[in-house]
Amino acid sequence: MTRVLYDLAGADPALRFSPYCWRTKLALAHKGLAVETVPWRFTDTDAIAFSGQGRVPVLVDGERTVSDSWAIALYLEEAYPDRPSLFGGPAAAAVTRFVNAWADTILNVDMVRLIVSDIAGVLHEKDRAYFRESREKRFGMPLEQVTAGREDRLKAFRDGLLPLRHTLSAQPYLSGEAPAYADYIVFGSFQWARCVSSFELLAPDDVVAAWRERMLNRFEGLARRAPCAAAA
Amino acid sequence: MTRVLYDLAGADPALRFSPYCWRTKLALAHKGLAVETVPWRFTDTDAIAFSGQGRVPVLVDGERTVSDSWAIALYLEEAYPDRPSLFGGPAAAAVTRFVNAWADTILNVDMVRLIVSDIAGVLHEKDRAYFRESREKRFGMPLEQVTAGREDRLKAFRDGLLPLRHTLSAQPYLSGEAPAYADYIVFGSFQWARCVSSFELLAPDDVVAAWRERMLNRFEGLARRAPCAAAA
Repeated sequence: MTRVLYDLAGADPALRFSPYCWRTKLALAHKGLAVETVPWRFTDTDAIAFSGQGRVPVLVDGERTVSDSWAIALYLEEAYPDRPSLFGGPAAAAVTRFVNAWADTILNVDMVRLIVSDIAGVLHEKDRAYFRESREKRFGMPLEQVTAGREDRLKAFRDGLLPLRHTLSAQPYLSGEAPAYADYIVFGSFQWARCVSSFELLAPDDVVAAWRERMLNRFEGLARRAPCAAAA
Repeated sequence: MTRVLYDLAGADPALRFSPYCWRTKLALAHKGLAVETVPWRFTDTDAIAFSGQGRVPVLVDGERTVSDSWAIALYLEEAYPDRPSLFGGPAAAAVTRFVNAWADTILNVDMVRLIVSDIAGVLHEKDRAYFRESREKRFGMPLEQVTAGREDRLKAFRDGLLPLRHTLSAQPYLSGEAPAYADYIVFGSFQWARCVSSFELLAPDDVVAAWRERMLNRFEGLARRAPCAAAA
């Protein structure tokens, strides 16, 4: 095996919860590319220092090292053109970048305020102080206070999903008739929440929830089979 | 001329401010298709009753009538496959639908709260009562109250544009190296604001503002040449 992915893990090394790593794992599955995942923790900066930066996903594909989920997706598309396309052409890749930016700057930012105290609960002991300090500094309050009263903020969160809801009311996947990278981007966020938290983000009759179910089933249940707090 | 577009107009019949009609006008220009636009007001429901619904844009293309900007874009793409593509393929069209949904449910909803009292100011006399009553019912307050203190809400509005800003920091257009329908969707919203209001939504050093300038120049300045309140 010459293909290795450094993949954020919790105290349980099988708990892999990074939304960005999920994008990459689903992209690799879409391309039909086997990968060995290496559990990595926030404080394991030395382990990925060779990549020139300190965050995962980091993909080592033979001689090539690529970090950042978007750069990895572009790399896979270019390096494996004969495998199923992640985008469906350069125009679709360009517009998918908007979906990526929306997930990074809106969806994940809204979502973390509903689950961040649960993230703290699944971390490896060596990550706990780093995570709590850095995130409490960012939010300006204890993590438990960030998520306190989250039930009351669910409606606003769900209202923010209207672009997803409208799109998925008109077509089965963000990428059209079949899932592709736009779906992996957004699903990665929901899988992140599902891995760390039993707090349910979606109403059962939401088309977004139905789409999430379909995504959980992809690749023989790759995401559904993953250890997660929601299934516990 | 057998191609006619019913296009929302103000008291000045040359003032054409609908974001949805702008999407269609730019799509027609992209396809290189000439069109005769007919000024239409909110209360001219009889004039478009033949379309089976009461809103513009309505495109009459020879024997064919199509309403709804998204349906018109799909129609143009299918009817004129030899003209420049509005999407760049079916995968791009699918993902562009997400951009369309984001503009409809987030961008326009945020933007109207900054400009709705200005819209009231440009309307034809026959539309004024309808517009004020329907919108004040929607907002639950006088239109002037909706936009009051808008300077203080600019930061939040601009923060909501982060997905645009990230995307346009990485590539010149939402559609990649050249503009296409994803750009027309979002630009239509900014042109709407520009047509009705002199209130500036963007900071001058914002990459979104630079993109808007490039869009204003497209098609020999089609949007820039249009009468608008911002240029007054």
